[in-house]
Amino acid sequence: MRRPPAVEVVAIGDELILGDTIDTNGAWLGQRLGEEGIRVVRRAVVGDDEASIRIAISEALIRTGIVLCCGGLGPTPDDRTRPVVASIYGWPVEIDEAWVSIIRDRFAMRGMTMPLVNRQQAEVPRGAVLLPNEVGTAPGLILDRQGLGITVLLPGVPRELRWLVEHRVLPWLTPKLEQTRSAIHRRVVRTTGLAESAVAERIADVSTDLDPLTLAFLPVGIGIDLRLTSWGDIPDDEANRLLDAAEARIRERLGRHVYGSGRDDLAEVLGMRLRDRHWTVATAESCTGGLVAKRLTDAPGSSDYMLGGVTSYANEVKAAVLGVPETTLAQHGAVSERTVQAMLDGIVRLMHADCAIAITGVAGPGGGSADKPVGSVWIAARTPARNRQRQLSLFGSRAEIRDRAAQAALKLLLDMILTEEG
Amino acid sequence: MRRPPAVEVVAIGDELILGDTIDTNGAWLGQRLGEEGIRVVRRAVVGDDEASIRIAISEALIRTGIVLCCGGLGPTPDDRTRPVVASIYGWPVEIDEAWVSIIRDRFAMRGMTMPLVNRQQAEVPRGAVLLPNEVGTAPGLILDRQGLGITVLLPGVPRELRWLVEHRVLPWLTPKLEQTRSAIHRRVVRTTGLAESAVAERIADVSTDLDPLTLAFLPVGIGIDLRLTSWGDIPDDEANRLLDAAEARIRERLGRHVYGSGRDDLAEVLGMRLRDRHWTVATAESCTGGLVAKRLTDAPGSSDYMLGGVTSYANEVKAAVLGVPETTLAQHGAVSERTVQAMLDGIVRLMHADCAIAITGVAGPGGGSADKPVGSVWIAARTPARNRQRQLSLFGSRAEIRDRAAQAALKLLLDMILTEEG
Repeated sequence: MRRPPAVEVVAIGDELILGDTIDTNGAWLGQRLGEEGIRVVRRAVVGDDEASIRIAISEALIRTGIVLCCGGLGPTPDDRTRPVVASIYGWPVEIDEAWVSIIRDRFAMRGMTMPLVNRQQAEVPRGAVLLPNEVGTAPGLILDRQGLGITVLLPGVPRELRWLVEHRVLPWLTPKLEQTRSAIHRRVVRTTGLAESAVAERIADVSTDLDPLTLAFLPVGIGIDLRLTSWGDIPDDEANRLLDAAEARIRERLGRHVYGSGRDDLAEVLGMRLRDRHWTVATAESCTGGLVAKRLTDAPGSSDYMLGGVTSYANEVKAAVLGVPETTLAQHGAVSERTVQAMLDGIVRLMHADCAIAITGVAGPGGGSADKPVGSVWIAARTPARNRQRQLSLFGSRAEIRDRAAQAALKLLLDMILTEEG
Repeated sequence: MRRPPAVEVVAIGDELILGDTIDTNGAWLGQRLGEEGIRVVRRAVVGDDEASIRIAISEALIRTGIVLCCGGLGPTPDDRTRPVVASIYGWPVEIDEAWVSIIRDRFAMRGMTMPLVNRQQAEVPRGAVLLPNEVGTAPGLILDRQGLGITVLLPGVPRELRWLVEHRVLPWLTPKLEQTRSAIHRRVVRTTGLAESAVAERIADVSTDLDPLTLAFLPVGIGIDLRLTSWGDIPDDEANRLLDAAEARIRERLGRHVYGSGRDDLAEVLGMRLRDRHWTVATAESCTGGLVAKRLTDAPGSSDYMLGGVTSYANEVKAAVLGVPETTLAQHGAVSERTVQAMLDGIVRLMHADCAIAITGVAGPGGGSADKPVGSVWIAARTPARNRQRQLSLFGSRAEIRDRAAQAALKLLLDMILTEEG
């Protein structure tokens, strides 16, 4: 049984330890290296002090022989990764004058003089490979010494780290691992509208019959993601065949509750269906305050279908701009089936859209009543053929209620379109 | 010199190692424990396998004697933290029938029968302290044994972890550490509109004269945060006095570029100024697609000032709803000073708002031209007294350009209001 090569990641920075910065590099490296058949088996996060950096890297080298370090390559005195790692390898540090010139030229191009401190970023332990960084001033470095192992140094800025991994590190690293390499394969099936326990129930028999694949449930706030993984111990083609079969069985059991796979966003999936049909869409939002419109325009090219929307936060705007009758607001309230329907009618009239979404509700934490507690939301959607309304009782924080209401409304419209196609 | 007590955090879960889930618990624990004078010195992230969990926890216990573990307390077979930790302590695991009853009652209240697998969540190593969890089915556990140290087990779900830390762990842990405890004090000053190097230049002399405080620059996409830290080696009142003085000097140098402190959000800061003046606001957005309206309604109580907005993504909506003249769009284009001004006028007319924000631009990645490349954005703002327009040349991804355009527009309106007050 083959096993993918194992590496460890060490993230360095007081801001990570203090909690000012959330470490996103670790998750990205786990995914990206896994795609190449390189398994991250452990991450460590340490502060900027030399002892912590030294211990974390030394321990990781002993365990796996390959360590990726993120952070501590900046131009200031608290950036200590370079000298600490050089001392682990017993290599003296030298200034790479060619890299100094490159940094100086970059500053000059912006009409600036390179601050002296930036020379520090051209320090290279003798024997290390310098990885030119085209998107920042700190180059990556690779230290590789028989008996000690491989240490890769990367800047902590996510954009620079990702660029260096793609363009410099993987091309260098993967050929060295070729003999043992077998990719981790992953498949994520995205669902919304069912609780975790309901998803589990529907796929109970599938989930006990997946060996050697594993299945994990990942609640993501606006739904449940199901992750199927092949861990690199079977050949690529067999892994893909098993994953295809497992995904098909899961999709069959969960039907319309599956809206996509991988990193698909529901708004983008909806956008593709709208584009297929040459339909336009518009939004009328109260409690979500523009979130649905924002999500519908997250995708490049969304102008193919998105006309626009109205955030009618105040009742006067619901009345004056969307034409919700004052009597409806007075008799039924802003959070009611009548109001959401009138908002939907209003936005279609105003923007001449083929499809539309409307939302009104109580996002909280204030504004709830016995009759309409926090989390009471009405959503509505329209296609050229019909209208649908639905009442939701959502739980969670203000942000969670808004996220879930937006997700449910996007899903309502998508389901209506798919039903009409089906 | 006193030093705050040190702890390590071990986060457990294949989803963290594979990168499906970004670890947010680590950052939260770093902040929250730091506030209590407990310093997290290291985090480790490992997968669900027993050997990795055992090694990570054992090593951490040897180094600091206090470990907080997050994750692996669920009801499924891949949740192994409890038995692994019990075996480190040499304690047998027993079912706590009282906790089983509590879980069963919770299911019953929702009209459901407790699945048998949930009994696993009531497993308690003999000698451990069970921490009742009022927001989930997995209780926290504390194992404390002379010579070995303290291990705290917490569920990985952020909401449950945070609740247990606040209500169960800190009340148990802090009295034990009282003798040596001295809080880490932090102060974050939030700036926007200046590059990192420009911020550094303006506060150069302040930043070299802070000892024993430290200063860090944290680029956060929509600005630069400055973090001042006192590391717990001076008394609380002295730390606060030094932080006050340093913050005052930084604010004096950076003036209006400082929009808040701590976790202040610019939209919320603007909202408070609007509320003070009893002014209303409305938005007209093209490339940001509703993001500014969404941000203005993120804060509870924003209905005090937010009337609503129009997302005019299509030119027809700019013309029909906001009244931008067709000739303006034809002669100057959708991304122009004339158009942004007409959008601003239109939204004020439509919603009768005292203040307004308008944005139009090229968020990319497509749609750019030699004349108006990706990142070309016009923003405009209005108070009852005047109008302002500004042209921006932004860089980054589509999401970054949208975030930065929204931030700049919110800042423009805030600056106008502050100038009128000043």
